[in-house]
Amino acid sequence: MSDSFWTRFDDTRRLRGPLAWGMDPSGDILDKWGLGDTPDGLDRFVDVVLPVAAATVGLIKPQAAFYERHGWRGFRTLARLIDEARGAGLLVVLDAKRGDVGSTNYAYAEAYLGPDAPMRSDALTVHPYLGVDAMRPLIDRAAESGSCLLIVTRSSNAEGRAVQTAVDAVGRSVEQALLDRIRELNSELTPGGVGPIGAVIGPTHLEPQLDFAAPNAVYLAPGVGRQGATPSDVAQVFAACPDRVIPSASRSLLASSDPSRLRDDAIELADEFVRLLAS
Amino acid sequence: MSDSFWTRFDDTRRLRGPLAWGMDPSGDILDKWGLGDTPDGLDRFVDVVLPVAAATVGLIKPQAAFYERHGWRGFRTLARLIDEARGAGLLVVLDAKRGDVGSTNYAYAEAYLGPDAPMRSDALTVHPYLGVDAMRPLIDRAAESGSCLLIVTRSSNAEGRAVQTAVDAVGRSVEQALLDRIRELNSELTPGGVGPIGAVIGPTHLEPQLDFAAPNAVYLAPGVGRQGATPSDVAQVFAACPDRVIPSASRSLLASSDPSRLRDDAIELADEFVRLLAS
Repeated sequence: MSDSFWTRFDDTRRLRGPLAWGMDPSGDILDKWGLGDTPDGLDRFVDVVLPVAAATVGLIKPQAAFYERHGWRGFRTLARLIDEARGAGLLVVLDAKRGDVGSTNYAYAEAYLGPDAPMRSDALTVHPYLGVDAMRPLIDRAAESGSCLLIVTRSSNAEGRAVQTAVDAVGRSVEQALLDRIRELNSELTPGGVGPIGAVIGPTHLEPQLDFAAPNAVYLAPGVGRQGATPSDVAQVFAACPDRVIPSASRSLLASSDPSRLRDDAIELADEFVRLLAS
Repeated sequence: MSDSFWTRFDDTRRLRGPLAWGMDPSGDILDKWGLGDTPDGLDRFVDVVLPVAAATVGLIKPQAAFYERHGWRGFRTLARLIDEARGAGLLVVLDAKRGDVGSTNYAYAEAYLGPDAPMRSDALTVHPYLGVDAMRPLIDRAAESGSCLLIVTRSSNAEGRAVQTAVDAVGRSVEQALLDRIRELNSELTPGGVGPIGAVIGPTHLEPQLDFAAPNAVYLAPGVGRQGATPSDVAQVFAACPDRVIPSASRSLLASSDPSRLRDDAIELADEFVRLLAS
């Protein structure tokens, strides 16, 4: 039995802070960095950024789309990034937003979670549109292998509000019902502790205030910087649970290909989160 | 400007019927077929099934998870499957259920839609949890390149009902609101015709009857066979628009590795749909 994701995140957070560096190498960034928007350029991006990340933060969050856009070669680079990052002691949150019916989710679990997975990640983001309970194979695999399933619950973009605030048969919003179900499942899986299921909560929409009904869950707060949330927004939204938040910033930390500039930007933001989310 | 997906599907349907053969090579199937649950076994699966599909149906629907579980090598096999299938005149519906904020959706569009995409597919399934309007880059790319975006709207599994039937601010269910928005967007993009945005509708839940408010959309009806829907269910649910349905069956068409058995099963089901969905 591996240590739980929570244990490993908590250790990481104390040593290196909670910030997850978003690794989102868009075509624009590869061009701007002079690497070329090609599979080789993507490979070189990893060579530049990974050593800086390993020296400055505790987690990375690659966004799968930016690797998939280079086809199987991009996927090979993503596999290498994940392996090398974990080898360097970083926790890897793979932002792939997968999700399907149960039998297909079993295949996604085989792909991304646990010791036999070819793209073994510490945490995986998933879509809830087919129901939390369809995720059982992913949940079980996460629980067994000390990894984490992060369910997209409240996204950082305005266009998602209609679905996420729709109301179910007992009058709860979709997003609140997800948090409630996460709490229940974590209570069953990890009585008295923090469980293997977390939620993705965009810290940009402050109303309606969510009841953080899952005191036994971790939260991924993406989109700091470019998508409008500030570190203070994160601290405000998660005031009740500052030790269980993983803030992530992507494009604001990829402004330059100069390693010393990358390093300085990452250290500055990482330190800001250490201060703001002190618990 | 390429022919629209609708034009190509309509031609395919008339020539070869509407059935999409789901290519879901789970570990169980690879083992049962004696191919071995490895990247090489997956490659051999494609070698066995693709020629039979090209001789019997008009569309294939690979489920990405079953390729991703073999890591980047599996993704390479998926890329080959997509290329060779399109080369053989099949339409490829990639069932990947991607979906994210707009800038990330742009990267997914680059990955899967249009002439420059490394994994160019004719149609791509996407998750709506972050909002249809966040899909603009995918929608635009689909419209420009004659491809199709299939939005998961009503899934074939029971666990998804709570989210999909939740009610928005004006009293519409999430699934109905999605169909309404698809209709509006298709009307703007393809006035008077069938547009580039379709919906995934599991034909297993017959209540509440959806108002097929999008008379200008195609529908993917997955899960025929193994997940409980029969061809008659499909015909009943889509009685109003039999010519715009893409039924798909996966595991029920992968019962045997014997090519003549595969061929006979595919022909039998394909013919059944030709009869049932005659328009």
